[in-house]
This record gives sequence, structure tokens and C-alpha cells, in this order.
Amino acid sequence: MNMIEPYFGITLVLGGARSGKSTFAESLARCHSQRVYIATAERVDDEMAHRIEAHRRQRGADWRTVEAPIDLAEAIRQESTPNICLLVDCLTVWLGNLMHYGREIDTAQDALLDALTEVSGPAILVANEVGLGIVPDNAVARTFRDHAGRLNQAVARLAERVYFVAAGLPVLLKGPA
Amino acid sequence: MNMIEPYFGITLVLGGARSGKSTFAESLARCHSQRVYIATAERVDDEMAHRIEAHRRQRGADWRTVEAPIDLAEAIRQESTPNICLLVDCLTVWLGNLMHYGREIDTAQDALLDALTEVSGPAILVANEVGLGIVPDNAVARTFRDHAGRLNQAVARLAERVYFVAAGLPVLLKGPA
Amino acid sequence: MNMIEPYFGITLVLGGARSGKSTFAESLARCHSQRVYIATAERVDDEMAHRIEAHRRQRGADWRTVEAPIDLAEAIRQESTPNICLLVDCLTVWLGNLMHYGREIDTAQDALLDALTEVSGPAILVANEVGLGIVPDNAVARTFRDHAGRLNQAVARLAERVYFVAAGLPVLLKGPA
Repeated sequence: MNMIEPYFGITLVLGGARSGKSTFAESLARCHSQRVYIATAERVDDEMAHRIEAHRRQRGADWRTVEAPIDLAEAIRQESTPNICLLVDCLTVWLGNLMHYGREIDTAQDALLDALTEVSGPAILVANEVGLGIVPDNAVARTFRDHAGRLNQAVARLAERVYFVAAGLPVLLKGPA
Repeated sequence: MNMIEPYFGITLVLGGARSGKSTFAESLARCHSQRVYIATAERVDDEMAHRIEAHRRQRGADWRTVEAPIDLAEAIRQESTPNICLLVDCLTVWLGNLMHYGREIDTAQDALLDALTEVSGPAILVANEVGLGIVPDNAVARTFRDHAGRLNQAVARLAERVYFVAAGLPVLLKGPA
Repeated sequence: MNMIEPYFGITLVLGGARSGKSTFAESLARCHSQRVYIATAERVDDEMAHRIEAHRRQRGADWRTVEAPIDLAEAIRQESTPNICLLVDCLTVWLGNLMHYGREIDTAQDALLDALTEVSGPAILVANEVGLGIVPDNAVARTFRDHAGRLNQAVARLAERVYFVAAGLPVLLKGPA
């Protein structure tokens, strides 16, 4: 793939676990000279904090990093400017955090969609596809799966460009390559 | 997508849980003026009956609805006419019903394929892809997954048109768009 | 699909359980007149031995079969010649064997990639996509899923041609059709 041209709309990058979706999303973001990484993973323990720091160092000094495990809509509003590319990684972890803290999912999802409608510059969002296995035994996992699928559909509707990534290889589902 | 032209062959719509596959299949069916919705979900309790009714109202009065949790081949034979579009939603729930009631899967699958070979008008079938997660712990889930994969392959061979839907977005796997 | 031309590079065929990926990979291999089937499944019991034999008979006498549940890199090196097509089925079962016997995954993966870099003839590798379901409850399954995703990415990078198969239908992710 040779994504030389920076793209200024909203891009959704879908994929499975260890599918290379984050690496691909980062390669799209690197077409822009200014980038903000919005991490949704939470520093719940030392190991997680260590992994977040390692990932931040690996991205390099030319990214700014913002952590938004819950208040994602607010972070997007604050960081969006016409020339900065936002990379949100990832929506599915954010959804898990919302459920963990008992937040109202529909309200949070609507706030996210509103914030995305108003971004003034490029935004790339990473999300997991989790609905292609067998129906989970436990009810929380089923509810999570339903919410994740609905969230992906809602963001895909709003996005101008959607990719599905498997084994590091992107398939364009919607929009200009 | 702009599916303006009605399509008169057999279409299979594959996708994960909450992938938007049913909504996409309905949009294909709406290209036809007359439509029969063949539901495979069973009214096992009041909640299920309520959900089936809610779904029926949401589709609107211009659909006829037939329930066929087990006798799907018979329902297809009875309802198929050259100018009516059949929408079967979904094959995977039907397979689960067959297993639950201890029916012989291969016999039921052959009867379904025979009925599909003889449909005189357009038919759209929805099915879940369930084989893209980790191997399930329990043997029934593994058997179900194997049957579902074989059923999807068999129907895909017979279908003239096959879509895979992710986040509401269809990818054409086979046939004319 | 009409794969008439034999292809002499490395091909990766990804897919879910019962997706038809092995049948599709075999159809690609049959474009070559000489073929070696490298099976990674292990004869752990009589049932497995029986299934392996049945599968071997079904492929027919015009395949040579080699079993390599662990020493896959060595088998590839030994069998590769310019005019013989290797079919490895499958990488994910091999990965499961490595984990089961406590082998060092990174070392084994590097050895495999080295062997693939040096193959002198066509090679087709089958692998499972396992990361598109809900996060597994148990830690071993999560580790397996991570390793499988990384292995698929590494082989996909090296492969000249990658397919994703769903319901028996191939989608080209990379390279010439």
C-alpha cells in the first residue's frame, strides 16, 4: 500500500485482535505532520502503565499522547484542529471501560458521534470486530458484543473511509483509498 | 450503496453479530414490491414473542411474515412465487433450532438446498459467520460451528450472489453487485 | 474463480473454521503437477490417525504427504524444489502444537520465516483467523490468539499473495489473483 496523500476526513479502521489494525492506522496518521494519539487504555496497574509508556516511546517524540479512558468525546473536541490528525486507539477498549464503570452506553455513544461530526481536521479511529465467533456463554460478553457491533456500525455510517484489516492487510470497505 | 435494480437470483448475506447484515438484507429485499419475511427465531417465551412482534411492526405492513423455526424448506417451497422476494433471517438460528430439537442436520440441510434449487423467484438468506474466533471450549459449540460453516459453504455454492457485511458495509464475495 | 495459471511465489490462505480455506488452498495447489502436502496435525490418538488417513486418501495418490507437527521449518527446507508445490495445512495447528509442547514460539516462528524466504518453488500456507470473536476468558487462549495474529501478520508480510476465505469464497488481500 502506498498511502502518500494525507486524508482529511474521518477514517474507521476495523480488525481483529493482533490483526495489525493499530499499525495500519498509525501508518495512515503518519501522512500528517502533526498528530495526537488518544489512548483509551486505562492505567489500572503498574504493568499497564509500563505497557502504555513503552508504546508511547515506540511511537516516537513526534506524537502527542492524550489519555481518555472514559471522556473520549471531550478529548476529541479539545484536540481537534484543522491541521492535527487525531488517532483514537481504540473504541472497543473505551466501550469496555464504559461498561466497567456502569456508564450509560447510548448517551456516551451519542456524545462521541456528536464530537466526531464536529471535528475540524482528520480523525482516525481504531475498533475491534468481535462478533465473528461463536455466541459467548456469559451475558456480559453478549451485551458487550452487541454494543460493540452497534458502535462500529454507527461510526462506520459517519466515517467517510472504512478499512477492515486482516493479517496486516487493509481491505477498503467504504470511501476513497 | 445504491441497489436500485431488483435481483432475481439467490443471495446470501453473511456477517457477524450486530454487523448490520439483516438491515442490509432488508434493503436488498425492498427493491422488490412484494416480500415475505421468513423468520427462523422461535417464540420460546413472552420476551421472544414481544421482540418478534416489535421487529414485525418495525418492518412495516408491506411485508408478510411467516415463522419457520424448523420447517424452513417447506416454508420456502410454499411461499416462493416468481414475483415475491423471500427473505430468510437467519440460517444460523435455524441450525441452532435443529440441533436443539435433535434433528438430523445433513437431511435438513439437503432439504433446504433442494428447496432453494427450485425457488421460482428472488430469495435472500441471512447467515452468521461464527468461525473466526478462538476454538470454543465446549463440544456442542464446536459442533455447531462446524455445521454452520458447512451450511454457509453449501448455500454460498448455490447462491448467485454472496455478500459479507462488517459494520453495516457489504463486501461482494461472489456475483453481480 | 478460474485459477488456471500456476503461481510460483508464496501464498497465504486465511480463513475461519469450516470456511473452505483448505479446499481452496488445495485447488490452488492442483495447478501444479507435483505437490507435497505438509500436514501439521498430530496423530495423538487412533481417531486422529484415522482422520489423517481418510484425508490423505481423499486428496488422492498424486500428492505426497509429510507430517510435521513441530519441525515445520525443516520439512519445508527438505521438500522445497523449484517444480514441487508445497501445501502447509495449517500454521495455526502447528502453533498450537508448539505451545502444547512448550517450545519457544519466537524462535520457531523465525525459523519458519527463514525457511520460507529460501524456498525455491511455490508454497501455499493455510492459517486460521482466530481474533474476530470476543476476548477469550482463559489466559492460554488469549496468548494463543496473540501468537496466531502475529504469525499471520509475519507470514502475510513475506507472502506475495494472500487470500481471505469465507463460505468457500476467496477475497484477494494482496498480490496477483
